[in-house]
Formats: sequence, C-alpha cells, structure tokens
Amino acid sequence: MSEVKQKAELAKKASMPFMSLTTKQKNDALNAMADALVEHQDLIISANEEDLQMGRDHGLSKSLQDRLAINAERIKDMSEGLRQIVNLKDPIGEQLEEIKRPNGLVISKIRVPIGVIGMIYEARPNVTVDAAGLSLKTGNAVVLRGGSSALKSNQKIVEVLRQALRTTDISEEAIQLIHDPDRASVNEMLKLNGLLDVVIPRGGASLIQNVVQNATVPVIETGAGICHTYIDEFADPQMAINIAFNAKVQRPSVCNAMETLLVHQNFAKEHFSALAEKYREADVQIKGNEEAKRIVSWIEDVSNDDYATEYNDYILNVKVVRNIDEAIEHIHTYGTKHSECIVTKNQDLATRFLQEVDATSVYHNASTRFTDGFEFGFGAEIGISTQKLHARGPMGLPALTSTKYNIYGTGQIKE
Amino acid sequence: MSEVKQKAELAKKASMPFMSLTTKQKNDALNAMADALVEHQDLIISANEEDLQMGRDHGLSKSLQDRLAINAERIKDMSEGLRQIVNLKDPIGEQLEEIKRPNGLVISKIRVPIGVIGMIYEARPNVTVDAAGLSLKTGNAVVLRGGSSALKSNQKIVEVLRQALRTTDISEEAIQLIHDPDRASVNEMLKLNGLLDVVIPRGGASLIQNVVQNATVPVIETGAGICHTYIDEFADPQMAINIAFNAKVQRPSVCNAMETLLVHQNFAKEHFSALAEKYREADVQIKGNEEAKRIVSWIEDVSNDDYATEYNDYILNVKVVRNIDEAIEHIHTYGTKHSECIVTKNQDLATRFLQEVDATSVYHNASTRFTDGFEFGFGAEIGISTQKLHARGPMGLPALTSTKYNIYGTGQIKE
Repeated sequence: MSEVKQKAELAKKASMPFMSLTTKQKNDALNAMADALVEHQDLIISANEEDLQMGRDHGLSKSLQDRLAINAERIKDMSEGLRQIVNLKDPIGEQLEEIKRPNGLVISKIRVPIGVIGMIYEARPNVTVDAAGLSLKTGNAVVLRGGSSALKSNQKIVEVLRQALRTTDISEEAIQLIHDPDRASVNEMLKLNGLLDVVIPRGGASLIQNVVQNATVPVIETGAGICHTYIDEFADPQMAINIAFNAKVQRPSVCNAMETLLVHQNFAKEHFSALAEKYREADVQIKGNEEAKRIVSWIEDVSNDDYATEYNDYILNVKVVRNIDEAIEHIHTYGTKHSECIVTKNQDLATRFLQEVDATSVYHNASTRFTDGFEFGFGAEIGISTQKLHARGPMGLPALTSTKYNIYGTGQIKE
Repeated sequence: MSEVKQKAELAKKASMPFMSLTTKQKNDALNAMADALVEHQDLIISANEEDLQMGRDHGLSKSLQDRLAINAERIKDMSEGLRQIVNLKDPIGEQLEEIKRPNGLVISKIRVPIGVIGMIYEARPNVTVDAAGLSLKTGNAVVLRGGSSALKSNQKIVEVLRQALRTTDISEEAIQLIHDPDRASVNEMLKLNGLLDVVIPRGGASLIQNVVQNATVPVIETGAGICHTYIDEFADPQMAINIAFNAKVQRPSVCNAMETLLVHQNFAKEHFSALAEKYREADVQIKGNEEAKRIVSWIEDVSNDDYATEYNDYILNVKVVRNIDEAIEHIHTYGTKHSECIVTKNQDLATRFLQEVDATSVYHNASTRFTDGFEFGFGAEIGISTQKLHARGPMGLPALTSTKYNIYGTGQIKE
C-alpha cells in the first residue's frame, strides 16, 4: 500500500472516536503540543537548518528562505498559536437548530467534526502546526502534505507533536505527514474519496489550480485575490487617499492587498495627482488607462492582461472611470470575488455597491486589508475561502466542522 | 461556441442582477410559472407522449415509464409545488451574524445567491420544475441537464416556464435547458468553473459517480443510502417491529429505506421469528447471518457484498449481533452515512449510538424513512446531501445559498 493511502487510513481510523472527545481532552492535547514545540526547539531548528542549506544549494530565493526559516522566536509564535486555539470556543456538539414536528419527532441539528482533513501547502512550516492544532480542536484528524523544501522541518515538527500526543487521550495517528516529495503523492491524496473528507490547498495559484482541477475529494478553494478599491466622486478625499494607499502598500504580497484602483473621473481630476505622488514616494509602479495618463503623465500604459494579474507586489493598475456602473462592471470582469471596497459619503451608492458586487468581503470606507480571520475576530484562520460552497471568506473553526441531525422519536413510522 | 457553454454564459449574465431582486419579484415569477404550467398542460402532455412512445419503442421498463409519464394530475402537482415555494421564507438578504470590532468595523454576514446552479438528473420531468423554482426563489440561475428519455417533455416544460418569465421582472435566460443528449454535454458542464458555481447530480449511483469523479466545479453529492436499523436488547418489542417493518416495506425504492437490520441476539431469540414472518407476508426476501438462520431457518445466506448493496427493493439483510459495539462497527464498515436508527429504551445506549454513528440523520426510536425535506419541515427539497461540506442531509432553500461579508467602516486602515 502506498504511503499516502496507508497514512490516510490510519488517520481515518484515529478519527472515528473523535466525535466523543471532550473539550478538555482536546485542550490538554493542544497544551502538550505547545509545550513540546518549545521543549524540543533545538531539534526542530537543526532540522530546519538542513532544509535551509538545501535551499541555498538549490538557489532558493531570499524571500522563500525567509518564509522557510525557523528560529526560537518563530517556535514561540507557533506554540503561542496553539495556546490561542485552546482559548477558542469548541464548536463541536453545538446545537444549531431544533425542529419539533407535528408528529412528535424532535430534530436536532448539531455541529460535528468533518472527519479527516487533507492539507496541501507550500514552504511555511508554521502551517504544519496551525493545521494540526485547528484540526485537533475541531475533532478532525489531518493528513499534511507540505512543500518538499520544508520536508525535514515538517518531519521534525510532526514527530514532536505526535510524541506529545502519546501522553494524552488522543491518538498520535490523528496527525499524519506525507514524506514522499513526489507530486504524485499530492495527486493520490486528491482522489482518496472515502478516506479524506476534504482537501484544503494553501499556496500559489498553480498549487491551487492543480488541486481544483484534479481532486475528486471535495475541496475548499482558497487564494487568489485581485482586489479593487473604487473611489467614488463623493468620497472624502483624505479618507480615500489613506484607504487606497493602505490597501496597496501596507503589505503588497498578500491576497487581500489591492491590485487595481478605480477612480471616478471627478475625484481623479482633483486628487489623483496627489495620490500618485504618494505612491511614487513608496516606490509603487503605476499603470493607468488613457484618462489616468491624461492627469498624471509619467504613469505607464495598462493592458487588459494587467487588469487580470495578481501582482502581490509594488505595482498598481489605475483606471479612471465615468461612474459606479463602469466600476462595478470592471470588478465583475476582472475581480476574483475576494475583497472589494467603495469609498464614498453617498449612502445609496454604497448600498448599491455592497449589494451588487459579488465577493467574499465588500467594504464601505475601509481598507481591503482587513479580510483575515484575526481581523474578523475569529481568533484563528485556516485560510480565506474564495468559493461559494461551505465557507466563504476568512475561515474560523466552524469552517472545519460539518453537521448532523439527531432525531428523537417515540416509535414514529412513516404513513 | 458549444451549446453548453453558450447557455451557461447566458445564465451567468442573467444571474448578475439577481442579488437585488425583491421577494415579491421572485414570487410573482413563480406564480406566473405555476399558472403557465396548467394553462399549457396540453402541450406538455403531448410532448411527454412523444417521450413515452420513444421509451416504449426502446423497451423502457414499466417503472421508468411510470416515472416519466405526465398527466393533468402531475401537472397540477408541479404547479402546486411552485406555489408552495412562493410560501417559503426568502432566505436571501438574511443577516446571519454581526460582528463589531474594537477598531469600529461592523462586519455583517448575509445570505446571498450562489450564482448559477447546474442540475444533472434522470427521468422524472418534475425535477425540471422543482429545480427551476427552487433556484429562482434563492436568486440563482439554473442550467438543467435532464435525462435524454425525457428530453421532449423537458423542452416543452422549460419553454412554457421561460415564456411565463417574459411577463415578469426576471430574465427568461435564468432557466436554461441543455438539449444535446450526448453524455459529452454532461462532462462539459462538470468543467465549467467560473460559469457554474455548483453542480448537483440527482439520480442513480453511476450518474452521481460520474459527476463526483469528473467535476472540477464544486459538487453537492446526493444519493446512496445503505441505511440500518439496530434493534437493541432493551427495545420495546412492538415498537421495534413496527419501525423495522416500516423502514423496509413502506417504500423500498427510496434512499432512506432500510437495507440491513441489525438485531441484538437477546432480542432476536424472542422476537425475530415474529418479525421475519411479518416480512414474509409482505414478500420481503431475507438474507441472514448464521445466528439469524439459527432462529429462522428459511432465510438465505448473506454475504459481505450483500451488506454493501443498496437494494432499493423488497430484499433485506439481517445480522444478529452480540452487542451495540458490533452494530456500530458494522455501520461504520458498510453504511453510506445516510440514515441510521437505534430502537432501545436504554437512554445511555441511545446517546452513545447518536454520538458515535456518523451519518446525516441518526434516529432514536423512529423510522429512517423520515429523512426528507418535507418531513423535516423545510417545505421543499433539492435532494439529500450525503457529503460533509456545505450541506448535509435533506436540503432546503438555504442549501442553495452562499454568504458574503459586508463591512462598514469609517476610514479604517490596517496598521
């Protein structure tokens, strides 16, 4: 039997009694895992050093090296992350609905674990800890498949976490890591219907597309964000400039950062020059349409391909538009339904934008950078779902749960 | 452009303004559709006669002919079905959650349409009407692909429904029917990411498996039910016999009917003979394990393959078990996580069964035949989801919705 199938079966078997775990049992396990990470940090850091050495040998970029690197401070963050999960409310067992039927049946809808979660992700080893902790708190087993560049680090982390579980009520088999670095092992995971109940990809567009295109197991799609800010003619100028600047510059590498700024022509005439200057000082490269270039001559031409690009970088498209219709139409055409914003003092236009723009998160007068489980107050985040089924937007613990109906009768039979 | 893609694009475009439809606009459209079905029933019935003639020529079985047939009474039922949907609460726009953050952001989670729903189904033309009505009430456009044996009927029904929409505020393009009877048109639908937001298959196991195996669009899996009833040693004998009889015999052809009866050995010794006799009188063929055969000699041998078979017929497996552990273990092994039942007066055992058995619907002292949107009080049913994501169990209107976050700010930017 392949490694993938064998480990998925172990996870499935381990997950069976998880419906009955108490919150205390789960929290004790999370605390034991948090302790173990710190206790064995030297082992983890030296395994990580092997990955880093391999990365340097293979010309891994500086920024990817940085994402991969583990030091005492990052171990502390991972450990703290687990303790934060301890403090979150346990969603399992919660009654969501109670229906009393005329025939006397009482139907109770309750939250239950999903079962076994497959996580497929890239370089950052902290995802290994987060995914294990969030899965465990929600009563799920997890099969992890991290990037090959972090394999040694992930192996050691999982070894430490599993060892910690041995002192608890929870089977260490609940956390499985696939060691096989071959891409075929990912594709095998994607077809394990009956063993994996869901697959969650986290990483770049090509990883996510591979999962979406090849999975027969249900997927929660995360990721791509071509986000827009529309500055309406009735926007407060200072607020608009602050929001548009923040949405691009505060951290351009993330999915909720803005890629295209849409500006009403009347606002643009008065204020686009000042805003463009602010971007220039922050080394943002600007591409604009004809109307934008007529106001600020030094910006480059924008193409339709640019509008469809998630830069995740200090590059910005600017389109001066005639009105809100053109802005919404542009977002329909090029948006990825992630995070969109209107800045305006006109309540009717804001309401229309919030209603008509189809995205996980639509903002009135705030930066798109807030689309995030922590900023939404969930206390944790598995990722940001960009699909419409099951969970949409930032996913907290409930996104890792399913439901069932328990039905209480007194001998009812169907007529 | 292919028929499938063209129609999916028309549906997508039609669905765009649907977020803003009022409940009245949708209900007016549903009433117009209900009226039109009755008004044009002769056209529909004569198109259906063509399908039936073709079916008879091709040796379609009597029971499939029956499912396919449309008469005035069935038209009335379809029309009434639409009027029942009018009476259901509109889920769109409902606020599910409001989060106030320390920075002043107000985050409102609201129900929105999914977008475009693809329905792939078999013979019964009433699904065409149900799916169109349920989709419309939830603000979704729909692309329908019915079975080729019902093509003429479905074409006429959709023509009548679309014509009815012309007198309303809703674009007729919201209801699309694929005419191409080739299976390739199904497979094309399954890959239309970006145009279809979800595909829902309804039909036999091979149709559903084809969808699950080949779709890159998210799927809501419906269907297979290998359901069990476990009669515990502490069951009320008369109640147990009534429930076990009802679960098998009341309508064996449906997914929530029982396929395997598990009986505690102590109960079996005293009561299995009487129950078996009752089944025999109803022409139920029984297959049993050694322990069952020792009590009732005339039953046949059961195999592991039998335990894994959804008969949907007057055939029943009976397994006499030592205790509840063996019963739960059997359900874990052979169940399809659809509907499971324990009959017992022992509250602790009931609680354990309800907690440990993983299925959409777990019953204490009631027939599994109640797993159904109407019996659960939803007033409608799109199908019974047997997957763990998005919706599980009988699906009412909320299963055809998604959510979005609207975020209200006063200039907040991320620090």
